[in-house]
Amino acid sequence: MNLEHLFTIRRMSKNLMEDIFDLASSIEEKPDSFAEKCKGKILAALFFEPSTRTRLSFESAMLRLGGQILGFSSAKVSSSSKGESIADTFRMLNHYAHIAVIRHYIEGIGEIAKEFATIPMISGGTGTQEHPTQALLDLYTIRKELGKVDDITIGIMGDLLYGRTIPSLLFGLAKYDNVKVHLISPPALHIRKNVKLRLEENGLAFRVTENHKEVIDELDVLYVTRLQKERFPDPTDYERLKGAYQIRKSDLRKAKDSMIILHPLPRVSEIPFELDELKYAKYFDQAKNGVWVRMALILKYLGVD
Amino acid sequence: MNLEHLFTIRRMSKNLMEDIFDLASSIEEKPDSFAEKCKGKILAALFFEPSTRTRLSFESAMLRLGGQILGFSSAKVSSSSKGESIADTFRMLNHYAHIAVIRHYIEGIGEIAKEFATIPMISGGTGTQEHPTQALLDLYTIRKELGKVDDITIGIMGDLLYGRTIPSLLFGLAKYDNVKVHLISPPALHIRKNVKLRLEENGLAFRVTENHKEVIDELDVLYVTRLQKERFPDPTDYERLKGAYQIRKSDLRKAKDSMIILHPLPRVSEIPFELDELKYAKYFDQAKNGVWVRMALILKYLGVD
Amino acid sequence: MNLEHLFTIRRMSKNLMEDIFDLASSIEEKPDSFAEKCKGKILAALFFEPSTRTRLSFESAMLRLGGQILGFSSAKVSSSSKGESIADTFRMLNHYAHIAVIRHYIEGIGEIAKEFATIPMISGGTGTQEHPTQALLDLYTIRKELGKVDDITIGIMGDLLYGRTIPSLLFGLAKYDNVKVHLISPPALHIRKNVKLRLEENGLAFRVTENHKEVIDELDVLYVTRLQKERFPDPTDYERLKGAYQIRKSDLRKAKDSMIILHPLPRVSEIPFELDELKYAKYFDQAKNGVWVRMALILKYLGVD
Repeated sequence: MNLEHLFTIRRMSKNLMEDIFDLASSIEEKPDSFAEKCKGKILAALFFEPSTRTRLSFESAMLRLGGQILGFSSAKVSSSSKGESIADTFRMLNHYAHIAVIRHYIEGIGEIAKEFATIPMISGGTGTQEHPTQALLDLYTIRKELGKVDDITIGIMGDLLYGRTIPSLLFGLAKYDNVKVHLISPPALHIRKNVKLRLEENGLAFRVTENHKEVIDELDVLYVTRLQKERFPDPTDYERLKGAYQIRKSDLRKAKDSMIILHPLPRVSEIPFELDELKYAKYFDQAKNGVWVRMALILKYLGVD
Repeated sequence: MNLEHLFTIRRMSKNLMEDIFDLASSIEEKPDSFAEKCKGKILAALFFEPSTRTRLSFESAMLRLGGQILGFSSAKVSSSSKGESIADTFRMLNHYAHIAVIRHYIEGIGEIAKEFATIPMISGGTGTQEHPTQALLDLYTIRKELGKVDDITIGIMGDLLYGRTIPSLLFGLAKYDNVKVHLISPPALHIRKNVKLRLEENGLAFRVTENHKEVIDELDVLYVTRLQKERFPDPTDYERLKGAYQIRKSDLRKAKDSMIILHPLPRVSEIPFELDELKYAKYFDQAKNGVWVRMALILKYLGVD
Repeated sequence: MNLEHLFTIRRMSKNLMEDIFDLASSIEEKPDSFAEKCKGKILAALFFEPSTRTRLSFESAMLRLGGQILGFSSAKVSSSSKGESIADTFRMLNHYAHIAVIRHYIEGIGEIAKEFATIPMISGGTGTQEHPTQALLDLYTIRKELGKVDDITIGIMGDLLYGRTIPSLLFGLAKYDNVKVHLISPPALHIRKNVKLRLEENGLAFRVTENHKEVIDELDVLYVTRLQKERFPDPTDYERLKGAYQIRKSDLRKAKDSMIILHPLPRVSEIPFELDELKYAKYFDQAKNGVWVRMALILKYLGVD
């Protein structure tokens, strides 16, 4: 099977997702037996917007597979500052690397890749739209920690409007059975209408609330995101909303014993440091899982698994 | 034979050029047999001015040879922001890498390398002066597509004043026999006087015209370049000239069947997308050839071919 | 023995320092026998402040050991631009790399590493505070050139207030016996009080002077540093002091035959080019030694020597 590109999780089947998770799990168990799998292969990491976590975890993944990396971490050091089209950048890359991860702000980038990229391209985040590999590692972490993704109740909290991880996570959850979602945010940061419509089409049930304390006793997963300061057109809106959303230790009294707290990171103030030592806190394990899941993705998309 | 540095194509003999092309051709045929040639060697990529294509293709070349890469892609992240001289940067590099590719804006950089660099240094573009490795891959592409570089007629169009690829290409062509050149540009963007004088010394015949349509029926190669927006002292000059130079499909009606269109890329609007599917369009193959030619250069300059 | 982190040279014993120097010396003699020592290991280079020398020499060191590198060379391309805490950056890195070198401007970074980093972290320079690996390569160079560090007289000249290499070098010298130090600087750039107090505690004898010519006949080592332009709150102070401190050829007439001149580089104007050819000039050898010492440090801190 030859996979093409990954810009939206919507086109990925539950079967393929479970395949990827199984492979990630094998890698996590015996990383050394994968240490030469990508020998002679090059991953291009093209970040037109800043990133630490996604970029470095993809690079770490490729290096752990014995492959090599090249690329850039800022649009300013690339030829796009000379007016080059992204289509031409892709056509050039076809010859410089065997697989690419790309973060860009334009929405139609998946279509451009489909037309012009002959090597597999994986999104490292697309504007405010999607972040499919983040969703995959989120789902992998849920599966690992709770033993399943079906039949769970999840609260998703924070910036549902600008956070690109949210739509991807929701589209991923929609592929599982009997998942109940609580969307927790101020009305101004609610999910976009087009995301809402797609979820309704996919039959994912969700409720809306402004306060995580009202639903915390029902949750198997509390998924928290930061406010995306850099996406607010008006900075005063950011300042006004910033303080309102924060998980406090006392909020967790009614939580299930088995509940897990996830966060795509980086966090700002929505999860205070005092929560880090609690059994609920799984967000650093989640970051770690990103390496295994991205190793699995590279293998699958290069067709060398 | 130990090659020293490569900052101008003028000092390279036709024999050496043909040697490099033969090696590039062998690499292109069997890249895998070169996969370990540079094991344990380090290429430093020092880009004081932004680049995607040149930097990434050099890095890809070194990685495909089994070597490693380090460096920087912006002067801001280097010690030159602390006032370090380029001579000292070179003396430091002698100990950190085995070969270097450098893009810098100062003209005398080849002389500085000659005095202070003990490892081979290859120019990745020098201000508005030269871009020798681009010229080599241009000539390699012509040789590959037309079977020869001698006895051809080439039209070179666009920004002949600021484009650094143009002087290098012309100096390269001057080494071949019976090459006829049409220089196509508005008078304001004509080649510099010192370039013109050198061509006359080298016996390269060229004519000047403002319109590619007048000569297109004679051409074996149409070489197009973008206007170098970032080099125009006055942006309104750029805007005024920008629209004038563009190849249209209808312009190609009188072209020879075997004519090829080349472009160093990135392009802006001088070659519209509708030309990409035509048999004439060879500029993406040209970009691909850059990897083979740069692999050959690394091998030659490291003395491991 | 498992070493933890390296943020200050004060906590390193003389024995460990000598161990590192012995290993560096073995590497310098037979670098090839160390070429596979770090196969499969990843070094993260995290430079929140610009660097060429330190970053590239660490990267070169890791690549020469057969390891791999990832990281960033500017805070702007990292998640700290999204408000991430350095503690979280460290917790993330634990999963992406096996060892890290970090340059950051905050003072307490060693404490943060101690609490949150599970992989060894080595300072690549901490604000105006310390630069321990620079001090180690300085001491290695002295040992190599003079055969010892005990019983020497050293003049340390330039920006003793803002230069972070100075405190580290002084703390390192304090571990050796019978070292005499002349601190040479204008009063405005004298060492900070807390550094002075620590030296007195450690029993390192030093004298203060404004003019290197007064002490040059006594010196075994003349250690020169540049004025740290980027650290001066008022640029006119920088301009006023800049010219005053410069070593001239004629200043060296009374120097011992065996005296060596060192400089952490980059230099600006404090050592003119005309000194480079003199037998005293050892600052480029010193830069070269940086690779051997950093290879030794990586091996020691990874526990693979």
